[in-house]
Amino acid sequence: MEGIFTTLLDLIGTFAFAISGIRLASGKQVDWFGAYIIGLVTAIGGGTARDLLLDVPPFWMTDSKYFITTGIALLATLLFKEKLFRWHNTLFLFDAIGLGLFTIVGISKSIEAGLPFWVCIVMGAITGTLGGVIRDVLLNEVPLLLRKDIYALACVAGGVVYFACIQLKLSASLTELIAALTVILVRVIALRFHIHLPVLNSIKTNSGREVDQV
Amino acid sequence: MEGIFTTLLDLIGTFAFAISGIRLASGKQVDWFGAYIIGLVTAIGGGTARDLLLDVPPFWMTDSKYFITTGIALLATLLFKEKLFRWHNTLFLFDAIGLGLFTIVGISKSIEAGLPFWVCIVMGAITGTLGGVIRDVLLNEVPLLLRKDIYALACVAGGVVYFACIQLKLSASLTELIAALTVILVRVIALRFHIHLPVLNSIKTNSGREVDQV
Amino acid sequence: MEGIFTTLLDLIGTFAFAISGIRLASGKQVDWFGAYIIGLVTAIGGGTARDLLLDVPPFWMTDSKYFITTGIALLATLLFKEKLFRWHNTLFLFDAIGLGLFTIVGISKSIEAGLPFWVCIVMGAITGTLGGVIRDVLLNEVPLLLRKDIYALACVAGGVVYFACIQLKLSASLTELIAALTVILVRVIALRFHIHLPVLNSIKTNSGREVDQV
Repeated sequence: MEGIFTTLLDLIGTFAFAISGIRLASGKQVDWFGAYIIGLVTAIGGGTARDLLLDVPPFWMTDSKYFITTGIALLATLLFKEKLFRWHNTLFLFDAIGLGLFTIVGISKSIEAGLPFWVCIVMGAITGTLGGVIRDVLLNEVPLLLRKDIYALACVAGGVVYFACIQLKLSASLTELIAALTVILVRVIALRFHIHLPVLNSIKTNSGREVDQV
Repeated sequence: MEGIFTTLLDLIGTFAFAISGIRLASGKQVDWFGAYIIGLVTAIGGGTARDLLLDVPPFWMTDSKYFITTGIALLATLLFKEKLFRWHNTLFLFDAIGLGLFTIVGISKSIEAGLPFWVCIVMGAITGTLGGVIRDVLLNEVPLLLRKDIYALACVAGGVVYFACIQLKLSASLTELIAALTVILVRVIALRFHIHLPVLNSIKTNSGREVDQV
Repeated sequence: MEGIFTTLLDLIGTFAFAISGIRLASGKQVDWFGAYIIGLVTAIGGGTARDLLLDVPPFWMTDSKYFITTGIALLATLLFKEKLFRWHNTLFLFDAIGLGLFTIVGISKSIEAGLPFWVCIVMGAITGTLGGVIRDVLLNEVPLLLRKDIYALACVAGGVVYFACIQLKLSASLTELIAALTVILVRVIALRFHIHLPVLNSIKTNSGREVDQV
């Protein structure tokens, strides 16, 4: 995943994730610097958790581009806030591209660390989604991830396709491309056709007694 | 803590913790996959934090049984939801067994890492309780841990008994058994006799000025 | 930052951070042990995150004084609760001193780890502020950090001054003193003169459609 094209996708993903954090922060009585912090943790939170679990140095420590890109995202929000919402579909696509790329980066890094394939898929999903979870926790909301299933499941689907391609002995670049596209397509199709998993209903008791107090 | 018996207790603890997460997730507009994730972090969150602090690879990376057990817990919830609440006391006992076992595992792993005894007790409590804390934070509730004291205190009691047994030169197996039973008994007795620590009341000011803004 | 004077400042900072956690926990239906836990994570949370990111053992594992100081803070709250609010300005100063010291400790430790200067500043800010963020998340509030900008910005200002002093070839002690004073002064001046960054307003849409759902 090296080269100019990957760097560009990485920056687009970071920008889209940062924007999604900053947008959610707006209207929550958060100031500019707080919005920057929310944008930053949305963009780098997943990869940081992955690197801690893999016991390697956090990726952002050796490259300032993630901090700078988040700063540009904040600036763009402040300057073009009124127009930003018109880019809604574009931003959704950016976010899906970021999700796809971040998932694949997480899987690749985990394979390098010698982990079994199912752990790699989990690490890919963590890389793609945990930033958004931290964003939601900081803004005091139940994480979107838990409610909009096809988010984390898209990462899992991409991971399964990744290892299917490896079994088929496809080249590394092709494998990564197909897997990233899978994540993106699952996201787009699920949103377009309103595909959701069922919601887990609560457990009623005869006595009305609280049953989840354990 | 090796052997078939320990593995069985470990699976029971994981299952009970996963169920407690899934039950709390139900009725929160969380879908099936979200419920699975909540169950999973409840079951493996404490041990993952412990392993990060000890700088060893997270325990679940080398053994898929925790992910599979959580899947079975979700399946059981979906199939037998209506009956699950009747198992309330059974599940409470499972949860207490899990707490006892997880606490002891945390202490053992920390002793192996050469940490002082009081750090081992803290690590045991983290292993036993942090999964539930993450569960509550994700579901946007003030952690039960902070309100139902005898949860974390039970882990501390078990840890103190653990090191008392070592001082008395009891065998490793006997020490672990007695310490785990202590955690379980403290939990059961506290719940049975409604034993709680006092609640910390808020600080009133003459002027009505907010004092905790620092 | 060695010596009796530093140890004293470290204890004052720990005490002030613990008190700020315990005070915020009061009136939230949290019991004594829960309040202790909140006080503890407020005091040691930032440094623990820093040490995990630096991949060094958490600082509190080799020194029980942070746990003991938090215990004393809880005891002081229970005994002198009615009088504590009169110390409001004193406690604010303690908290600012703690913030300054913790930030400088974070920067020093990161320099020792060989990180670039801007990462060191980020690590200083994390050390100073993350404990308060965890406190707020556990108590189910949007972190103060996000709303009261001059908190994290004060750490950044201190960090910039730190590296400016190094460029000027000032001695290590003088550098640390000036940088810590910068953090404290920025905090005090911002509070005294009600200096805030602007709040980020929400993005309105023509259609009223939710735009931050990505």
